[in-house]
Amino acid sequence: MNENIIEGRNAVLEAFRSGKPVDKLYVLDRCQDGPVRSIVREAKKHDTILKFVDKERLNQLSGTGKHQGVVAFTAAYEYAEVSDMLKLAGERGEKPFLFLLDGIEDPHNLGAIVRTANLAGAHGVIIPKHRAVGLTATVLKASAGALNYTPVARVTNLARTMEELKREGLWFVCADMKGEIMYRQNLEGPIGLVIGNEGDGVSRLVKEKCDFTAAIPMKGNIDSLNASVAAGVLAYEIVRQRM
Amino acid sequence: MNENIIEGRNAVLEAFRSGKPVDKLYVLDRCQDGPVRSIVREAKKHDTILKFVDKERLNQLSGTGKHQGVVAFTAAYEYAEVSDMLKLAGERGEKPFLFLLDGIEDPHNLGAIVRTANLAGAHGVIIPKHRAVGLTATVLKASAGALNYTPVARVTNLARTMEELKREGLWFVCADMKGEIMYRQNLEGPIGLVIGNEGDGVSRLVKEKCDFTAAIPMKGNIDSLNASVAAGVLAYEIVRQRM
Repeated sequence: MNENIIEGRNAVLEAFRSGKPVDKLYVLDRCQDGPVRSIVREAKKHDTILKFVDKERLNQLSGTGKHQGVVAFTAAYEYAEVSDMLKLAGERGEKPFLFLLDGIEDPHNLGAIVRTANLAGAHGVIIPKHRAVGLTATVLKASAGALNYTPVARVTNLARTMEELKREGLWFVCADMKGEIMYRQNLEGPIGLVIGNEGDGVSRLVKEKCDFTAAIPMKGNIDSLNASVAAGVLAYEIVRQRM
Repeated sequence: MNENIIEGRNAVLEAFRSGKPVDKLYVLDRCQDGPVRSIVREAKKHDTILKFVDKERLNQLSGTGKHQGVVAFTAAYEYAEVSDMLKLAGERGEKPFLFLLDGIEDPHNLGAIVRTANLAGAHGVIIPKHRAVGLTATVLKASAGALNYTPVARVTNLARTMEELKREGLWFVCADMKGEIMYRQNLEGPIGLVIGNEGDGVSRLVKEKCDFTAAIPMKGNIDSLNASVAAGVLAYEIVRQRM
């Protein structure tokens, strides 16, 4: 998969609107419905090279096969720095709220989590360089364009980054069944929400750096929520407490 | 895709443990790690026909290609009746808590939502027969086995089912940005949580039957959460209020 491809109507439109440099746009020939026409308008406004192609060519270009009639080629996604996130929080006059993903492997989960981070008002998402999915076209699509707004940084060592952020005043909370029920924790301060790998959860070294473990109440028969759902439930408990 | 295939270690193990009739189990030859050995033990205990095959054969049998070394063939999944869900709530001495999915199309979302319904203590999930994904192998896998515990019913007309459930005392809440912030709604009664289609949201007819519209606070730049994340956030607001 080419990491410079953006496809799907929402994702392409968001890329234009957020000012992301689109080098070239491929559009399904004779596709005339509203969303596609909006995208073509944006492309003309931005002097993007525009090509109308047939379905076969578009399928060929597509990374995921789910292009919905539009495929854009952009400059590769640029990872942000962790310091940018703290700066963003400062500019907004808010206490920092970061997501730390300890080895998310599924691009749909990563995209959904960046989407959640954006809507929950978080200032960024930190992922590790190794043993985790990066920012592919699938992630961008699953993020519904949120990747254009919410900075994502990639770090070599998540535990070390947590140490550094603690010196900036952040507290870290990770989801763990054995923790205190999340509704009874105080999650109002500057916070990093740690989400573990889909199968293995949060790794030992990272868990040791966490200040709280918060449990989502589990009433059912199985072990755990989907990672992106768990991230959403915990993130919105933080939102609720901060309101 | 064959709807009678279960694959992936968690899903197959859950199927055995919940007493689902497995007709035949295919296991990757010489696969000796812990989870697979547990599955083989379960299979022997249940007198399941057991076959060791090579990777190529397993890939062939697999519906999704993500078998993790085990593929089981079971009796087709049986849809439940809505009345079973009310009965289940009664048996547990709980106020009914149902999920109604108005046209979820992505099997990963459906699976993740059934998983959430199970862990949030809901009594069942109702889906429409048309224009929605059914219970495929991908859904079962994405549900992490929750489909074995949480009943799923399929109905012809969701709005009519809501009318019938209102006569049983249920209230319906749907997620909508224009609604009242969810934290300020009273969601403690017998409730049906309505989740809309990934792209189009809740349809007009179904929305008209809803008693409340609850808004998830949105602080970001994009329009909406992933459908399964939104379902999780709302479901856990119901859990919180009921605690």
